[in-house]
Amino acid sequence: MKTDWNSNQYLQYEDLRTRPAHELLSRVGLDNPKSIMDLGCGPGNSTELLTRRFQNSVVTGLDSSPNMLAEARERLPGADFIEGDIISWAPDTKVDLIFANASLQWVRNHGKLISDLVDKLVPSGVLAVQMPDNLDEPTHRLMRQVAEEGPWSKKLAEASIQREKIGSFADYYNYLSGQCDRIDIWSTSYAHILDSAEAIVEWVSSTGLRPYLSPLDEEEKSDFLKAYLRELKKAYPPMRDGKVILEFPRLFVVAQKKIC
Amino acid sequence: MKTDWNSNQYLQYEDLRTRPAHELLSRVGLDNPKSIMDLGCGPGNSTELLTRRFQNSVVTGLDSSPNMLAEARERLPGADFIEGDIISWAPDTKVDLIFANASLQWVRNHGKLISDLVDKLVPSGVLAVQMPDNLDEPTHRLMRQVAEEGPWSKKLAEASIQREKIGSFADYYNYLSGQCDRIDIWSTSYAHILDSAEAIVEWVSSTGLRPYLSPLDEEEKSDFLKAYLRELKKAYPPMRDGKVILEFPRLFVVAQKKIC
Repeated sequence: MKTDWNSNQYLQYEDLRTRPAHELLSRVGLDNPKSIMDLGCGPGNSTELLTRRFQNSVVTGLDSSPNMLAEARERLPGADFIEGDIISWAPDTKVDLIFANASLQWVRNHGKLISDLVDKLVPSGVLAVQMPDNLDEPTHRLMRQVAEEGPWSKKLAEASIQREKIGSFADYYNYLSGQCDRIDIWSTSYAHILDSAEAIVEWVSSTGLRPYLSPLDEEEKSDFLKAYLRELKKAYPPMRDGKVILEFPRLFVVAQKKIC
Repeated sequence: MKTDWNSNQYLQYEDLRTRPAHELLSRVGLDNPKSIMDLGCGPGNSTELLTRRFQNSVVTGLDSSPNMLAEARERLPGADFIEGDIISWAPDTKVDLIFANASLQWVRNHGKLISDLVDKLVPSGVLAVQMPDNLDEPTHRLMRQVAEEGPWSKKLAEASIQREKIGSFADYYNYLSGQCDRIDIWSTSYAHILDSAEAIVEWVSSTGLRPYLSPLDEEEKSDFLKAYLRELKKAYPPMRDGKVILEFPRLFVVAQKKIC
């Protein structure tokens, strides 16, 4: 018997952006949900986890991006995908499981949002939410700092207001406790081992950095990235082997709607 | 089809003190480890998880407490248990998996400790560690504060030095990166929903509070607990439904020893 790594399991975990969805799903204790809504399904990676675990359920993915939906439909020809935004989603019949992986952070006013989502569940249905909680991390603090201190400060005055800060454990508990029980809340901060501070820029450039770069012209973009990288290098010093650790905190909430 | 909760799965997760061991184990990607050492096995709950997952492995539990070992032997008559402490553990042959759930926080000087443990692994063996990281939480900060401010301050001068503060992600990465790859580090903070501040006292009284209470006489104990409870009530205000949230952070490290 050789001490070998299980490559399937390892690869499953390898995908740093799917691991949180996997961990969220592992805390959903439902056996046979009839209907599942994957809110903000993106390219369908979370939807795929749901269809794999709940093979007898009707799984629907909702996203506001036609590009993402095209990719999701190609990945999962058997699932339903609809275009729409989370706020105005109004299902004809209540659903058994609402799964929102890395999407609700783009919606404001979570007190009302959470309560509205629970309204759309059947009794004993489950709401499962995962959100990045990184606005106070150096990556995001330094974006705001570089935006405020540079000649582009006016152009970028709106860049940081796209997302609201995620609430505390107590906030989400209070949003839920009137309508739900079995409230399960936790946060996990992952250590992403990356090759360099440049790799951190790459990591955030497809997500958090976009509102900061898109209003700038090419020269400004280049100057912004230089200033940002300089700050990142101070905040993420190399470890003994030269690599850097990007800490990435995420908040998880799972709750079951009360029966009466 | 009814939307019902899977009680087996739910109960499995219900046990707040076993959930971290379960999550640690889920990140160990080994298929068939020949030999497994459960370091600081306590009453055998982590050992039981190991024997259930790795049915063809030889699993040994080590603990310094004869009481704990007696309980573990009763729970798992098929496994081996030995009395000893973590520092002086010296196996005859190297092992495939060292599992240390909620035990290494009692050992000082983690740089040397981690390196010594990896030395006891076969090539491509795995070290998996979970530790409470709560010394800066209000529960533990307030123990120290009440100890320092009361008439018992001299008696309790040593109480807070039993445990060293857990290191950062970067510390553990640096301890490991010379000898290991596939280094996986994360922290999870669990929201334990408890009935009252009194329940928090109960929670910590079997663990963190013991070194503070054992040197005191009965009257002092009672006064200490009153002062501690008064501070806890300020730090853990009730939520809308009267319950309180005990946040409990834990650090997780999994790494595989390099082949050469």
